[in-house]
Amino acid sequence: MSLVLDPAAQDLLFREARTANTFTDEPVTEEHVQAIYDLVKYGPTAFNQSPLRITLVRSPEARERLVKHMAEGNQPKTATAPLVAILSADNEFHEELPQLFPHFPQAKDAFFSERPVREQAAGLNAALQAAYFIVGVRAAGLAAGPMTGFDFQGVQKEFLDDDHTPLMIVNIGKPGDDAWFPRSPRLEFDQVVTTV
Amino acid sequence: MSLVLDPAAQDLLFREARTANTFTDEPVTEEHVQAIYDLVKYGPTAFNQSPLRITLVRSPEARERLVKHMAEGNQPKTATAPLVAILSADNEFHEELPQLFPHFPQAKDAFFSERPVREQAAGLNAALQAAYFIVGVRAAGLAAGPMTGFDFQGVQKEFLDDDHTPLMIVNIGKPGDDAWFPRSPRLEFDQVVTTV
Repeated sequence: MSLVLDPAAQDLLFREARTANTFTDEPVTEEHVQAIYDLVKYGPTAFNQSPLRITLVRSPEARERLVKHMAEGNQPKTATAPLVAILSADNEFHEELPQLFPHFPQAKDAFFSERPVREQAAGLNAALQAAYFIVGVRAAGLAAGPMTGFDFQGVQKEFLDDDHTPLMIVNIGKPGDDAWFPRSPRLEFDQVVTTV
Repeated sequence: MSLVLDPAAQDLLFREARTANTFTDEPVTEEHVQAIYDLVKYGPTAFNQSPLRITLVRSPEARERLVKHMAEGNQPKTATAPLVAILSADNEFHEELPQLFPHFPQAKDAFFSERPVREQAAGLNAALQAAYFIVGVRAAGLAAGPMTGFDFQGVQKEFLDDDHTPLMIVNIGKPGDDAWFPRSPRLEFDQVVTTV
């Protein structure tokens, strides 16, 4: 066995963890979210640019507004999950670069003066952070239900602004009854990895 | 403390893990890569589409060809890392969907018949898998050095094809002398998370 990570942690984060489609009523607290963030904020991004932004949809009124923008199949779980988070990429992340990358404060102007460059960098790096966030939700003993089946423009208009591009929406909570389908097969090693 | 993940695992994967810029000579074996893949293949993607592809650059001749496409500051570490992996997104991932998503074999045609839709989905979901891969490298007790500073078109032409878009290149190995800068600061919770 070539992994040093404890097998229980392997199970918690990957092997036994599943995308949940139903949830119990047990709340996801502010302490949960803070503990998750305090762990996954250390995941690496290019220039430490850290473009992920998280909008927690907590009020019933906001939840109702969000559910309208979800694909029909995603509406019931988004309506009933204990917590729903909108993950977005901040295309103006460069404003924080002098704080985030003190080794080379010029990076802000040297590399990120153009919006299309920032959008591409923010899209990739916020997606990395979205994956760290999913791993972090699992590290908190909770199940994540990431979804891209929603009206992206509608969610952006309703909850964000022109500088924030939605990436995905994640339901969070303890898995409920019949929370998932049987595990789908994965690609074989040789279908994914080639050597040159 | 709201995390259930063992603190040693938290340190291994996030708190103590760092992006390495130098490496020891200790090889990264095929068993390492298989163990990493066998763990992180379970990370979730939309429709289980699993678009990440991994090209291991093992031969000295291939390494030399790769180094030429790296940004100058990335050349020495890419030349000396025990293993270098090119991570790419397979824009034709839908061909494997009937295998990967047996609950709904029509997904291939219903959602992914158009190439631009596939490119967008593959870019996002392969980025999620790239992050799982980085976490997996760390789970193997190794350090990852992810880089986007390279000629993307050059690497695509040299090592991939029109159906595979490079995402990032990752140096892998045991950290060497002076492997990293001091940890850069992270954004505060309130800079990242808002509640509605």
